[in-house]
Amino acid sequence: MSNVECDEIINRLTSMLPAERPIALHEPTLGQLEENFTKDCLRSGWISTAGAYVDRFEKELAHFCGIEHAIATVNGTSALHTCIVLAGVKANDEVLVPALTFVGTLNPIAYQQAIPHLLDCEKSTLGIDPEKLDQHLQRIAEIKNGTCINRQTGRTIRALVVVHILGIPANMPALARIAEQWNLILIEDAAESLGSFRDQRHTGDWAQLSALSFNGNKIISSGGGGAVLTKNSELAAQARHISTTAKQPHSWDFIHDKVGYNYRLPNLNAALACAQLQRLPEHLSNKRKLYRKYRETFSDIETAKIHQPPEALQCNHWLNLLLLSDKNNRDLLLQEAHAQGLLLRPLWNPMQQLPMYAQCPSDDLSTTQQLWETGICLPSSPGLAA
Amino acid sequence: MSNVECDEIINRLTSMLPAERPIALHEPTLGQLEENFTKDCLRSGWISTAGAYVDRFEKELAHFCGIEHAIATVNGTSALHTCIVLAGVKANDEVLVPALTFVGTLNPIAYQQAIPHLLDCEKSTLGIDPEKLDQHLQRIAEIKNGTCINRQTGRTIRALVVVHILGIPANMPALARIAEQWNLILIEDAAESLGSFRDQRHTGDWAQLSALSFNGNKIISSGGGGAVLTKNSELAAQARHISTTAKQPHSWDFIHDKVGYNYRLPNLNAALACAQLQRLPEHLSNKRKLYRKYRETFSDIETAKIHQPPEALQCNHWLNLLLLSDKNNRDLLLQEAHAQGLLLRPLWNPMQQLPMYAQCPSDDLSTTQQLWETGICLPSSPGLAA
Repeated sequence: MSNVECDEIINRLTSMLPAERPIALHEPTLGQLEENFTKDCLRSGWISTAGAYVDRFEKELAHFCGIEHAIATVNGTSALHTCIVLAGVKANDEVLVPALTFVGTLNPIAYQQAIPHLLDCEKSTLGIDPEKLDQHLQRIAEIKNGTCINRQTGRTIRALVVVHILGIPANMPALARIAEQWNLILIEDAAESLGSFRDQRHTGDWAQLSALSFNGNKIISSGGGGAVLTKNSELAAQARHISTTAKQPHSWDFIHDKVGYNYRLPNLNAALACAQLQRLPEHLSNKRKLYRKYRETFSDIETAKIHQPPEALQCNHWLNLLLLSDKNNRDLLLQEAHAQGLLLRPLWNPMQQLPMYAQCPSDDLSTTQQLWETGICLPSSPGLAA
Repeated sequence: MSNVECDEIINRLTSMLPAERPIALHEPTLGQLEENFTKDCLRSGWISTAGAYVDRFEKELAHFCGIEHAIATVNGTSALHTCIVLAGVKANDEVLVPALTFVGTLNPIAYQQAIPHLLDCEKSTLGIDPEKLDQHLQRIAEIKNGTCINRQTGRTIRALVVVHILGIPANMPALARIAEQWNLILIEDAAESLGSFRDQRHTGDWAQLSALSFNGNKIISSGGGGAVLTKNSELAAQARHISTTAKQPHSWDFIHDKVGYNYRLPNLNAALACAQLQRLPEHLSNKRKLYRKYRETFSDIETAKIHQPPEALQCNHWLNLLLLSDKNNRDLLLQEAHAQGLLLRPLWNPMQQLPMYAQCPSDDLSTTQQLWETGICLPSSPGLAA
C-alpha cells in the first residue's frame, strides 16, 4: 500500500519534470550576464570589500524591496547576526524564534551567547503562529520596567525573530502587534523570501532590521551573499560600520571604535549579485508557473497535497511543499526518489532535535512536529517551469 | 628642516616608483587566468559553498605551505575566529596578543567574549618580543591545575596568538617554547605572511591552528578569503565542520550537531584564489626585488631607514616599512605624500588606543609605541618592482 502510494507520487513528479537526472532541490541560473559582470569586475581591479558593484547592488536591492537601505554581507547568517547585534541581544537574553526553520536562524543568537526560545508555527503560512505566541507570552512572560521577562527563567526576552518559511510571508500584522505589545525588538529573517510580498509590502518591511540570503540554493545567488534591510538611516549606518572593521573614516589613521565583524560582501560577489537581480522578475514568474504546475499535478490525489499559502499573499514560492497524509510514507518516498535522482528533501529537523538547542525554552511544538513528519520539499529551480 | 626631510623622502620615492598616480598601498594583480577560472566556475554552476575549486585551492595551498590541511573560509577574520573557537577560548578567558597588529587579530577574541591581553613587540621581527613575554608571565602568571592563571585578574590565560607582522616571521622557536612552558594554546595569525618561512618552515607551521587571509590588500586575493591551516587531522575535520553549518552527513536529514558559522569560501572566490596561487612565486620574487630597491633608495639617508628583518628569515615582504628618525615628521610626510597620490600608511594604531580594547590587561608597550610613532608603510604591490 505504502509502496504503491510512493510510486504514484514519483510517477506524477516524473511526468511533469524534465528528463535530466539528478534534479537538484534548487540550483542557480547563470549565463552570459553573470560572466560579463564578473569579468568587468576583475578588469576594474576592485574585487574585495568595496567597489561599484557593491554600491549598485545595495541600491538596486533596496529599490526592489521598497526598503530604504540594504547593506550587503557575505551571507544570510552574517546579515542576521548583524541584525541581532544591533538589536542589542546580549549573553543570557532569550530570543523568540520558530522551531521550524533552518539552523542559520538560531546560530547568530548563540554567537551572542543568548538563548533561542522556540515557538510553534501555523499551517497556513508555516511561520510563527501569532495566536499561540500571544497565549504563550501571557502564560510565561511579564513586563518589568519596560522589559519583557520570562517568569519561568528570570531572563529578559529581548527580541522576536520571524522567518518567512519557504518564501511564504508570515502573519506580520499580528506578529508586529505582539512584538510591540511585549516590547520585543522585531527582526525578520527573510533569507528565503526575496520577492515575497504581503499587503504590497516586501518581507522585511515590518521590522526595523531584516536579513536576506543569496546562498547557492536561493532564488538569486552571489555564491555566498546576504543583506541587511532597514528603513532606519541610523541603523543602516551602524550595520555598515560593524559589518566592516568599524573604522572611523580617515585617510590613514586606523581608529576602529567598535568590534567589527568583517562581514562585507566582496565586489566580485556583488557583480554576480547585480546580474542575478536582473533575472529576479523572470525567476518569480517561472516559480509561480512551477507552483501552479505542482498544484495541478497533485490536485486529484488524496495521499499527497501541495501546500497552499493564503491566496492574498504574493509568494516567491522558493520551495514547493508536498504534504503527505501518511507520515510513514515520508522516508520511503525520500529514499525511492533519491534512488531515481529526484533530490527531494524533508523540512528541517525542528530545532529542539538538535543537541545544542535541545534544552532551549519552548512552547508546545505540535504543528511543527506534524509538518516535519509529513512535509517534502520538491525541486523548485525556476528552470523547471519550462 | 622637517619639510626639507619630507621632501627628500618623497623625492626618493618618486624617483623609484612608476609615474602613475595614485599608487595604492597594495593592490591585486589580475589577468586572463583569473577571468578564465571564474568563467569556468560560473559555467559549472557550482558557485557557492562547495565545489571543485574549493577542494583544489585547499589542496594546493596546503601543499605550498607544507602544512597538511587547509580549510578555506570567507576571510582572515573568520579563519582566525575558527582557530579561536577550536582552541576552546571562552567568555572571560584572556588571550595574549600583540598590541601592534591589525584589529582583526583581536576582534575574534571579543566574539567569544574573551579578553585580549596586550604584549609588546621586538624591533627585529616586529612580532611579540619573547624575552619580554617571558618576564611578563613570570611577573603576573602562575600555573594552577595545569592552567595558566593571571594572578592580577584571576582569569585563565588560554592562548597565545602570534602575528607575523607585515609578513615577517615572528620568533617562533622562542614563542612556541613559552607557550609550551605556560600551557598556552599557540595560534599563528599568518594573515600577512603567506610565502614567509623561518628555518624552512612556513609561518603557521609551529601552531596547532593558524590563519591566512586573501583580502584585497594581501599578496594574493580571492576578493574576500582566508584559510585555517593545521597539521592535525582531527582539528581539520572540526574546522571544516564548524566553518559550515555543522551538519552531519546524510542524503536528506538536517542534523546539525554544533553551532556552525557559515564561514566557508564560495567556489567562485576559490576559483579566483586558484588563479592567484599560481602567481604567488612570481609575486614573491617581485616583492623581494621591490624590498631591495627600497633598501637601496634609502641606504644613504639618515632621517629614514627601511626596516630590515633578520637576514635568516625568508620574508614575503608584504609591506615595506620606513622608519623615521624624527617622529614629528610622520604626519607631515603622510599628508604631503597623500597630496601627491602616494598612498602611504602609518602602522596600525596600537590596540590599547581603540576604545573597546583600552581597558585590556597589558605589558609595557614602549617598543610598540615607538614603532607606531615613526613607522610608515610604503606602497608594496608586486607590480611596482618592474
